[in-house]
Amino acid sequence: MTLLSPLALTMGEPAGIGGDITIKAWANKKQNNIPAFFVIDDPARLRSLARRLRVDIPIKEIRSAEAADKTFSEALPVLSLGMDVKSQPGKPSEKTVKAVIRSIETAVKLVMSKSAGAVVTNPINKATLITGGFEFPGHTEFLAHLAKSEQNPVMMLASPELRVVLATIHVSISDAIKQLSAGRIIHAGKICNDALKNDFGIVKPKIAVAGLNPHAGENGLMGSEETKIIIPAIKALQDFGIDASGPYPPDTMFGKRERAKYDAALCMYHDQGLIPLKTIGFDQGVNVTLGLPFIRTSPDHGTAFDIAGSGDVSEESLVAALKLAAQMQSTKSKKE
Amino acid sequence: MTLLSPLALTMGEPAGIGGDITIKAWANKKQNNIPAFFVIDDPARLRSLARRLRVDIPIKEIRSAEAADKTFSEALPVLSLGMDVKSQPGKPSEKTVKAVIRSIETAVKLVMSKSAGAVVTNPINKATLITGGFEFPGHTEFLAHLAKSEQNPVMMLASPELRVVLATIHVSISDAIKQLSAGRIIHAGKICNDALKNDFGIVKPKIAVAGLNPHAGENGLMGSEETKIIIPAIKALQDFGIDASGPYPPDTMFGKRERAKYDAALCMYHDQGLIPLKTIGFDQGVNVTLGLPFIRTSPDHGTAFDIAGSGDVSEESLVAALKLAAQMQSTKSKKE
Repeated sequence: MTLLSPLALTMGEPAGIGGDITIKAWANKKQNNIPAFFVIDDPARLRSLARRLRVDIPIKEIRSAEAADKTFSEALPVLSLGMDVKSQPGKPSEKTVKAVIRSIETAVKLVMSKSAGAVVTNPINKATLITGGFEFPGHTEFLAHLAKSEQNPVMMLASPELRVVLATIHVSISDAIKQLSAGRIIHAGKICNDALKNDFGIVKPKIAVAGLNPHAGENGLMGSEETKIIIPAIKALQDFGIDASGPYPPDTMFGKRERAKYDAALCMYHDQGLIPLKTIGFDQGVNVTLGLPFIRTSPDHGTAFDIAGSGDVSEESLVAALKLAAQMQSTKSKKE
Repeated sequence: MTLLSPLALTMGEPAGIGGDITIKAWANKKQNNIPAFFVIDDPARLRSLARRLRVDIPIKEIRSAEAADKTFSEALPVLSLGMDVKSQPGKPSEKTVKAVIRSIETAVKLVMSKSAGAVVTNPINKATLITGGFEFPGHTEFLAHLAKSEQNPVMMLASPELRVVLATIHVSISDAIKQLSAGRIIHAGKICNDALKNDFGIVKPKIAVAGLNPHAGENGLMGSEETKIIIPAIKALQDFGIDASGPYPPDTMFGKRERAKYDAALCMYHDQGLIPLKTIGFDQGVNVTLGLPFIRTSPDHGTAFDIAGSGDVSEESLVAALKLAAQMQSTKSKKE
């Protein structure tokens, strides 16, 4: 028995590996010590997928999020979308777009009303969603919209050895340079600091801020962003009482000895943070959205259409996402 | 006894850790199985530094590179610069600039005349050299000039688990994007392929080419460099019969499973290659200059003024540089 609410897991793109890893995660729930969750999907679709994967598990439709806790020990609890989802592994179709969106909307509704403890999302496929009229640049922006959040969310990637937060995200590297501003860095640093304290239970978080350029610009010899943007942003964060330091040369800050010295690295662009994270532990990364009014995690991979339905997928990242969401929920509930 | 010529090691910036790691490398030569080398320096300076470090080793002046082999087993062989070098750890001075340059010039002369088997360089300090009238952007450019090389050298970083070559090097990230061209990528790919065959003994090298943007641009959604520059360059490399593939999403190409699939990653900018390399093995990286008429390696760190003369330095990267230079020399000599 737990006093925490179960985690709401979205269906994600049904032609991707979301169903595969959901089924495998539940099947291996004991050895992986997975917290109670329910998935918002079409039970018939999951039963058919489980047969295809030859993973013989009980799948049970539940009527409310509250029922998930009791059901979880004996069957994979599925809160029905109330619509048939016909999916074929590897073949996304715009016919399923409504179901994908409804699954996310339902999860947010349940977490906002405290019936779910956190939202964990399976990967979606932006291109398919767009053909179905989806108008958001990505998952995160859609969640922020549904939550009526007033601040821009911040993307964190967390693995057992490293946490990174990003000042710029899914844009070309030349747009990332254009977008980079002290405001963005300060925003990411503040949200990160709050999350490390409230959701990760770190009393006085240390944030290491990366430079943008090789050798962090080497005193202006290779780029001026450090002097003009990053150093002023670090000073502002320090003025807010945040233990931020840097800018550090990006290539030397992620070694084993170095990364042990801070709680999160604040990175200037997508690959600066994701290269070290995935180089260290490929399947262990969890995507955490900070700055939403609820906890949201997701596995750090895409729909993987090429291996969907094959059984040859690793549920490791989803398992890590579920466990981290539960941990964060537990830490947060102790604070409240 | 060896049929290969001894390695010529330069003094580097005398206020940096070059002397420290040279002395430690010779002192631990047996356990590290280090090939014969000689250093081009002022013997009196090294003797005084060894006393300061309390590393009690014999230091012997040699008259010619040829004498190094015999001397190496009993003493650290020093080919004298013929000038006094007064250095103070951590305090670079323009008075030593001439000696720094002469050490490099001598090494190149000896390797070009086959008296030395390869050049291994200790780190220099560009800022000090500039005050002394040095006019080259860096070590590598100076070596290319001394060798009267007609092609631009290519920088490779090599560690036991990963080799990377860089299409752009020591420039700001926004200049790297501006400099990036199919010509640069093709040049780096060809030089890399030749070196992997001739110096590393790989019969049919596999080169993985990185994208520039997150997710390698995701089909133009995040940047057009992949479509306009990188893909045409890969095709051209393939037309030359080179096993080049990509562009790969930069964040997912350096995991343990992924990096086992290729012999070198061709990276678009400095940190894209150096972040994964140094994240995997901080002290194990060796800088290799490809495209010179001789073998040149160097440790993958700077002068480290803050710890020079303290004894608290790791010679691991210099040891790796010496060993790799000897290996490359051996492979090359079998080919010739």
